[in-house]
Amino acid sequence: MPEIERKFKVEALPEHLLGPGSAIQQGYLSVEPVEIRLRAQDGGHELTVKSLGGLRRVEVALPVAPEQFDELWPLATAFVEKTRHRVEVGDAIAELDVYGGKLAGLLVVEVEFVSEEQASRFVAPDWFGHEITEDSRFRNAALAQAEAVPE
Amino acid sequence: MPEIERKFKVEALPEHLLGPGSAIQQGYLSVEPVEIRLRAQDGGHELTVKSLGGLRRVEVALPVAPEQFDELWPLATAFVEKTRHRVEVGDAIAELDVYGGKLAGLLVVEVEFVSEEQASRFVAPDWFGHEITEDSRFRNAALAQAEAVPE
Repeated sequence: MPEIERKFKVEALPEHLLGPGSAIQQGYLSVEPVEIRLRAQDGGHELTVKSLGGLRRVEVALPVAPEQFDELWPLATAFVEKTRHRVEVGDAIAELDVYGGKLAGLLVVEVEFVSEEQASRFVAPDWFGHEITEDSRFRNAALAQAEAVPE
Repeated sequence: MPEIERKFKVEALPEHLLGPGSAIQQGYLSVEPVEIRLRAQDGGHELTVKSLGGLRRVEVALPVAPEQFDELWPLATAFVEKTRHRVEVGDAIAELDVYGGKLAGLLVVEVEFVSEEQASRFVAPDWFGHEITEDSRFRNAALAQAEAVPE
């Protein structure tokens, strides 16, 4: 299903809003021309194919058995680790990612919408910081290849 | 599971050995550093991840629903079409691929083995032609990008 989402770079963690976090490990088998990502989260494993792009893009997630994941993981060439928190924002659920490793200090919040109209109507709360939906440096595949948090 | 196989370029089709054929369409989402291939065959659809290499390599196949396949197919950038025939060769089953489209005229036979020892013991029948296991030009991902049959 195509995803419609907007993304913001958070400057200060809204501690009081955070629910429990979930650790995520991502490894990339391909970054271009399509993103092909392995992800381990909460004991589950998946391979996701994403087309490049900003607001609207193709995304297909396929479940992967643990032993298949272990075979595939060494083929990955770029990595991201982060902890994901779910946060209620009005009537939407946002996902706040707290990055680790070489990207420590980076906080990104993403909100998913059911339509492009709903996406454009959305008013971000102050703590969201500035919007980076169209900033390709903050795509996870780009972050996985970066040496540090983009300026 | 890692696959152990040997591959040969057939010069003349052994018509009398052929069982019924099965049409295969392959589209590549990635060619390097890993091969990521969509395949439609006999009404089934899958996405396969393969590491590069000759005799022994990682291969993981994931089933894909028809509607997911339709979403993913436009992301492919290189293509192969062929008809696959199963052929008994001694106590092994070989797969003979008859290529179509820009690769019409190319015939490749592949035999899979349970061990590297069995692979090295295998004596190919005359009609197999010369071995191309290590010839990277005949990898399907390379053929998908080629303009014509390699010399």
